[in-house]
Amino acid sequence: MNRLQKIKNEMSQQQIDCIILFSSRNIYYTSGTAQFSICLIPLDSDPKMFIKRNFDRGKSETWIKDVVQLNTTRDVIEEIKARKLDKAKIGIEMNYVRVNQYLKLEKALNAEFVDVNPLFSHLRMIKDKSEIESLKKAAKAVVNVQKVCRETLRPGITELEVAAEVSREAKLNGSWSPATNFYWDANGFVLASGENLYTPGDYPILSGVGASKATPRSASNRILEEGDIFVLDFATNVDGYHADHARTYFIGKPTEKYKELYKLVHRVLKTIENQILVKKEIGVLFKEIKQEVGKYQEYFQGFNGYRQGLGHGVGLELDEPPGIVENNKQKFQVGMVIAFEPKLIIPGWGAIDFEDTVHLRSDSTEVLTNSPFENY
Amino acid sequence: MNRLQKIKNEMSQQQIDCIILFSSRNIYYTSGTAQFSICLIPLDSDPKMFIKRNFDRGKSETWIKDVVQLNTTRDVIEEIKARKLDKAKIGIEMNYVRVNQYLKLEKALNAEFVDVNPLFSHLRMIKDKSEIESLKKAAKAVVNVQKVCRETLRPGITELEVAAEVSREAKLNGSWSPATNFYWDANGFVLASGENLYTPGDYPILSGVGASKATPRSASNRILEEGDIFVLDFATNVDGYHADHARTYFIGKPTEKYKELYKLVHRVLKTIENQILVKKEIGVLFKEIKQEVGKYQEYFQGFNGYRQGLGHGVGLELDEPPGIVENNKQKFQVGMVIAFEPKLIIPGWGAIDFEDTVHLRSDSTEVLTNSPFENY
Repeated sequence: MNRLQKIKNEMSQQQIDCIILFSSRNIYYTSGTAQFSICLIPLDSDPKMFIKRNFDRGKSETWIKDVVQLNTTRDVIEEIKARKLDKAKIGIEMNYVRVNQYLKLEKALNAEFVDVNPLFSHLRMIKDKSEIESLKKAAKAVVNVQKVCRETLRPGITELEVAAEVSREAKLNGSWSPATNFYWDANGFVLASGENLYTPGDYPILSGVGASKATPRSASNRILEEGDIFVLDFATNVDGYHADHARTYFIGKPTEKYKELYKLVHRVLKTIENQILVKKEIGVLFKEIKQEVGKYQEYFQGFNGYRQGLGHGVGLELDEPPGIVENNKQKFQVGMVIAFEPKLIIPGWGAIDFEDTVHLRSDSTEVLTNSPFENY
Repeated sequence: MNRLQKIKNEMSQQQIDCIILFSSRNIYYTSGTAQFSICLIPLDSDPKMFIKRNFDRGKSETWIKDVVQLNTTRDVIEEIKARKLDKAKIGIEMNYVRVNQYLKLEKALNAEFVDVNPLFSHLRMIKDKSEIESLKKAAKAVVNVQKVCRETLRPGITELEVAAEVSREAKLNGSWSPATNFYWDANGFVLASGENLYTPGDYPILSGVGASKATPRSASNRILEEGDIFVLDFATNVDGYHADHARTYFIGKPTEKYKELYKLVHRVLKTIENQILVKKEIGVLFKEIKQEVGKYQEYFQGFNGYRQGLGHGVGLELDEPPGIVENNKQKFQVGMVIAFEPKLIIPGWGAIDFEDTVHLRSDSTEVLTNSPFENY
């Protein structure tokens, strides 16, 4: 069954008469092109692409047959009226569409608007063969990025200098900037050392402190010293698909406590990766892994009020459903691709953070990101 | 007059009783911190910051005195009710707030909602002394980026390899990724050569074709050849402020036509920069510059239906008001910082694109980005 048919099945079940897509990620998923456009998907008639720019390229890339030039959103409204769908139940991406755009639609149409973000999240959680191929390319790229990171680290270098080398390597591997998270405002990755590991970030907890208070995340001017712990949590975006990958490094000769916690978090990650996760309840895995951390539970995925999940889906967006959180009653399914990121963040000491992007198969958990670990 | 007073003056004139800010750029402008938060600005009482993370850092950075921990948006709604503003005229950023967030506010409050994006755009157009200092730092960084670009270009290198080197240099200069443009989905810069210069991009016209159809912009795998024209239009973000800067290069020995058009666009940019722009109508300048281009007018700022403005304001966002477009009747003012980007894009031939970020003073137009030009 192709993607359009899957979308229409969901629409039928939820009694949605028509969808208007605005986000380039869902448009790319649905149509095969990421050119600036709006995609109309009526339940009972053929879909239509309104492409603004580049029209010729978009038309040649999409498998949708009915393609017209987009001038303004009014073109789409007129089409909806022509198809007598202006009083229908219309799905929009409520986590993406902005208020000013919504108010225009609300004024022009007498429709009942519903959120189709869950519909697309649900479908996009299960990756098809071509998506897995792209995810593997992104994984290969991000493993190269971690290799460059390992080779770059030395006392005297600044966090920003390391950021420069890993950003360079990502581009050399054909990686576009990772997709934006709404609250970040800008694409970012986690790069932090020393005390910056346990200075709570704006999002996520372990984020680094940034080069200025206007951009309070990722790399800073901090100079690496002997005895520092260093974390790089980086994502690549190849063919539009992401791989999310973290490793922790020690500058100089590691302490016994570092080795102990390194081994612990490594064992925790392997406990996840050595399981056949399919059909297991997500929240149950979370609770088991928390138990596995033993006496360090209070630092599991953060500390005090500052905590984050154990992982998330990865695909056209860097962070997409399912969330690997305690109260998630969903089950893992074949074809999901999940980034697992167990970590301990200990105020006054530092952090250990590992993350792998894995593909769930019926018979195994396939690790796509395979950077080495230290053999302590 | 401080920024909060200026905001309240505007609120008073527009009879807005209360503003709820969600965007980190306006929050940073208003409060001095960019930590993940919501900022409440009632007209007749003191402002209040609701900081989610990192609370301690946010509190130490902001000049707003009343600061509390943010748990959910409901905290803000309760505060509005407590101040009896729930039936008032409330300003929100309609170009930033998403539909799901708006519907929560609309349900909880009986307010009349108005868009305060124009209010902030209006205030932010005029930069103060500390903003000019940050803009100068960003300009210095982006001049270094162009220098590295010039030194990197050679036949045989790919666009992505050049992108890697310029991205590295930006980070070495303390630059965070440039702010996101809504329709881009991800941060980007323009890097294009050969036929990619006149393949219409999704946004803007001259964008490059990208590494894949999922990310159809900026650098691609194209290998540079002798006889290629190459454009880098890059922006840096230092201390939260941007500088936008483009130069055009020739790989090998330039042709006579290239030299002719290079000189023409260079003269056009200097025509702008040698004027005292303050008090001049923006649309009038646009028309004059279009005249200056003479017989190449049909390629001025694009071709056919694909065209873009002559420039834009630069500040906490890479592209902010005023737009330098034909129908803009606003006048240039002291303290504006504008990126002017005259260009010719000729299908089948290539493009010439120069951009400088300039500061408008009462007695001169101060060029902040001073990369050299060829002396043809």
